[in-house]
Amino acid sequence: MQQSSLHTFVDNGIGYVDSCTSWSRAVSNASASSIDAVDAAKRLAAYTAVDRHVQPGDKIIGIGSGSTVPYVVERILQQGDERNRDRVFLPTGFQSQQLITLAGLRLGDITQYPEIDVTIDGADEADTDLNCIKGGGACQLREKVLAEAARTFIVVADYRKNSTVLGTNYTSGVPIEVSPFASTSVLRSLRTKLDSPNATLRMARAKAGPVVTDNSNFIIDAPFTEVALRKPRELLASIKLLTGVVEVGLFCGVVKAAYFGNQDGSVTAKFENGEVVHIEEGK
Amino acid sequence: MQQSSLHTFVDNGIGYVDSCTSWSRAVSNASASSIDAVDAAKRLAAYTAVDRHVQPGDKIIGIGSGSTVPYVVERILQQGDERNRDRVFLPTGFQSQQLITLAGLRLGDITQYPEIDVTIDGADEADTDLNCIKGGGACQLREKVLAEAARTFIVVADYRKNSTVLGTNYTSGVPIEVSPFASTSVLRSLRTKLDSPNATLRMARAKAGPVVTDNSNFIIDAPFTEVALRKPRELLASIKLLTGVVEVGLFCGVVKAAYFGNQDGSVTAKFENGEVVHIEEGK
Amino acid sequence: MQQSSLHTFVDNGIGYVDSCTSWSRAVSNASASSIDAVDAAKRLAAYTAVDRHVQPGDKIIGIGSGSTVPYVVERILQQGDERNRDRVFLPTGFQSQQLITLAGLRLGDITQYPEIDVTIDGADEADTDLNCIKGGGACQLREKVLAEAARTFIVVADYRKNSTVLGTNYTSGVPIEVSPFASTSVLRSLRTKLDSPNATLRMARAKAGPVVTDNSNFIIDAPFTEVALRKPRELLASIKLLTGVVEVGLFCGVVKAAYFGNQDGSVTAKFENGEVVHIEEGK
Amino acid sequence: MQQSSLHTFVDNGIGYVDSCTSWSRAVSNASASSIDAVDAAKRLAAYTAVDRHVQPGDKIIGIGSGSTVPYVVERILQQGDERNRDRVFLPTGFQSQQLITLAGLRLGDITQYPEIDVTIDGADEADTDLNCIKGGGACQLREKVLAEAARTFIVVADYRKNSTVLGTNYTSGVPIEVSPFASTSVLRSLRTKLDSPNATLRMARAKAGPVVTDNSNFIIDAPFTEVALRKPRELLASIKLLTGVVEVGLFCGVVKAAYFGNQDGSVTAKFENGEVVHIEEGK
Repeated sequence: MQQSSLHTFVDNGIGYVDSCTSWSRAVSNASASSIDAVDAAKRLAAYTAVDRHVQPGDKIIGIGSGSTVPYVVERILQQGDERNRDRVFLPTGFQSQQLITLAGLRLGDITQYPEIDVTIDGADEADTDLNCIKGGGACQLREKVLAEAARTFIVVADYRKNSTVLGTNYTSGVPIEVSPFASTSVLRSLRTKLDSPNATLRMARAKAGPVVTDNSNFIIDAPFTEVALRKPRELLASIKLLTGVVEVGLFCGVVKAAYFGNQDGSVTAKFENGEVVHIEEGK
Repeated sequence: MQQSSLHTFVDNGIGYVDSCTSWSRAVSNASASSIDAVDAAKRLAAYTAVDRHVQPGDKIIGIGSGSTVPYVVERILQQGDERNRDRVFLPTGFQSQQLITLAGLRLGDITQYPEIDVTIDGADEADTDLNCIKGGGACQLREKVLAEAARTFIVVADYRKNSTVLGTNYTSGVPIEVSPFASTSVLRSLRTKLDSPNATLRMARAKAGPVVTDNSNFIIDAPFTEVALRKPRELLASIKLLTGVVEVGLFCGVVKAAYFGNQDGSVTAKFENGEVVHIEEGK
Repeated sequence: MQQSSLHTFVDNGIGYVDSCTSWSRAVSNASASSIDAVDAAKRLAAYTAVDRHVQPGDKIIGIGSGSTVPYVVERILQQGDERNRDRVFLPTGFQSQQLITLAGLRLGDITQYPEIDVTIDGADEADTDLNCIKGGGACQLREKVLAEAARTFIVVADYRKNSTVLGTNYTSGVPIEVSPFASTSVLRSLRTKLDSPNATLRMARAKAGPVVTDNSNFIIDAPFTEVALRKPRELLASIKLLTGVVEVGLFCGVVKAAYFGNQDGSVTAKFENGEVVHIEEGK
Repeated sequence: MQQSSLHTFVDNGIGYVDSCTSWSRAVSNASASSIDAVDAAKRLAAYTAVDRHVQPGDKIIGIGSGSTVPYVVERILQQGDERNRDRVFLPTGFQSQQLITLAGLRLGDITQYPEIDVTIDGADEADTDLNCIKGGGACQLREKVLAEAARTFIVVADYRKNSTVLGTNYTSGVPIEVSPFASTSVLRSLRTKLDSPNATLRMARAKAGPVVTDNSNFIIDAPFTEVALRKPRELLASIKLLTGVVEVGLFCGVVKAAYFGNQDGSVTAKFENGEVVHIEEGK
């Protein structure tokens, strides 16, 4: 399971692999001497998160998605075969399933392992209180299941995801997964009752018609006012209670800590108690 | 569209039709002189509901399922071709789609007609305040969408569905539709947090493994204590807020009136204002 | 149902509509005096197809997708309310469902109307014998069902879709819909047994992971050699027989006629008997 | 992973487990002294199949379903922890996933392990040439993928599944998985073109409407004449080529050997070369 042996694992004839990001490409920047400051910062964020939160006794580990997550897997691999041999890794979706498989780690399923020691995932945006918007990739249901099932849920991301109020940087709206039969009625309710006049069904680009999620549902992107987004917990409840809403891309009260890679190569860490810490490489 | 011409509509080569309940069988008791008292009462309940709530100006009409509903369609047909020609009928599922088709009525889709004049549906149980349990047939999502989209939502059923408190007669639990990926975590939450220790995944009988709904989801049947079921609105919210719950088979605050056929051939009508009325044929 | 009344139909609160192509945009070029030659040719192709193949007695009409199809609906509308009042239109997917709804025409369902008088659809490419590649929009299953159910199946498209051999202009491969569980094994078979080494799973762009079709399946795009594509009927059979293949985007022996709009404003018509006819406006 | 430790594995909080067959119940007859002759024969069939075909070097093992399969898992467990530690077990569906999990064996996924050493599964019926009908549980797609992916595919079943010609004992028809949109057209084709006038959509019993498979499809049960069923390979091809057919419950040319438990406690083994062997316990 060392990095040099990754390619023997990769060459398993699985069709998906070579049509997507290969592991070496996924982490290549990390080993290059010339990686830019943001990549270095993402790596530092991921390494710090793993060093602090993925302990020797942690056996069931959730792996999410996003551009910082490959460094998470890289750091976990550096913990060595001995420690990883008994671990099971649960993916939040297709990308992380590939990442786990390419790394030669053991893949598991939430049905078999309903209690997770630690889950590390990206986010589309996180506010001061560590509430998050997730779902740009339409995976918020699986991500939330793995976040809530974990004793410790950690976010890693780059500086653009670090906000004071949700909706500041991620402006396309709260991603809402809906059952297709209810999509019209949910859109109407969002527009007329929940004050999101620009809520729209997300259309696909590599097929005709709307995006279909891995759970056979549709996605609505619903922008809300800053006033509404300052109370994400209330907003989450009012959306989720609409008939046919499967899951809302608002995560409230589940993040223990978030690590953001900054443009200058440093890392900003935010904790659930409100503490904010600045971290620099080698310090 | 008169009853005598139904069979020309039926013979349209649609495979489903002859493998299921034919229209003539569905309503045969109604025209027989010897129908028993309960069937007569169901018919009286359905006829009364249609006579009072399906007005000449009603053009978009939702049709649900249950053993009383065929009499609803029968009565609507008796309103005549002239009135039904411009009407569109929206089904809550497979049975009502067949019923509408077999009756030669025009089928529509909620996506095209998001505002419904009147929806008439069955229920698995209804309490004093007209809260209902629905979902024995795993169709509660579509049924709730059509109930909420209607200006007027009416329930028709037999006397066994008429309760004071939910869970009295329908004892297999509240049907909860969940996204498969979240089914394990929802089951755990129901058992440990929401005090439903006997919540179980509904298993199929005509296939191996769990029931898969028409929306590609699973069903959990979750029995609750009488204390919990006396506050169905709170219970509905606490279940729906669980991650991955698509829809709960509790309908609260949507029923305008319910008509129950009794064993003695009479009908008990209950209204949203708490009024209860006893109706007998020909009176 | 005249064009002027379209917008009263549009404003029905259906969420999808304003997030997509509006009818006026869809056909705006057609009524502008300055439309370019290709658009004029597409319109001429569509109008010719409708004039020849959508007869007064045709009551059940299938409508497909593609940039030429809006002109098909436009021409059908010009046949007048009287003729369209009793017609039912069956869509092959989301775009054509919108087109039908926006035009104020009556929407139907293949389950209710299994026999279609005429279906008009686009194509990604058509060869000399009117074999077609379809499925760029991942809708080939529904399109093929509506093509085969029709007494007359007509293709309308622009000149780029008019080929001698399939794979000449549409080079991304034959679109193959597969059940997700079988996607890896189908990919392996395509690569190793059916000589399509570059077959790949189609990845989504507006969500993470693979495209999910409206039937909850995946899409594989499989390029084949010219030798293989010169025998599309054999190729279709060998792909379809792979375990888990739902439908192949090769249409063989179903097209009666194809009308292609050329760059110079003329139309090339090809018929199932091999005849090719050149058509110019006003001639 | 010894039998005594199974229950520590079971108690992992997975909701499904206690709502279904527990391991101890699943195999209880096997350890009782009073098991009847058929159960003893099933056990002998399963044990013989495992002893002959699950070799020490076999690491990727497919597990199917049926009443004989629990004895397969029981025998594999008896091969000892040492041998099973490095093995991965792939299930064909819900029942076998539970069986693997309850046995404390390591669960894998066909996407990760596309090449299987040996798969052992049940069957609804097998003829002289080891052609099989499968799909009574609506799992034929997954079962066929695991059968074809295996170097060695073995069937274990009781004597009622042992036939000369398919359709003799299993009379409800060939199970055919179809995409819902194509279900009407496939039914029509089966009835009119493929001489199966009694083909019907399989209706669910624990929900309203048709059975929905784990792949979100429908099932058609299509009885054929003996003449047709004597040529199962041709029949399979002609059904599979219908537009929208996902997979047919006919397995032709994939079974290496089949072991049937007889009423008298003996086992009949049939091999792909036509050989038939009678096996008795302790001989």
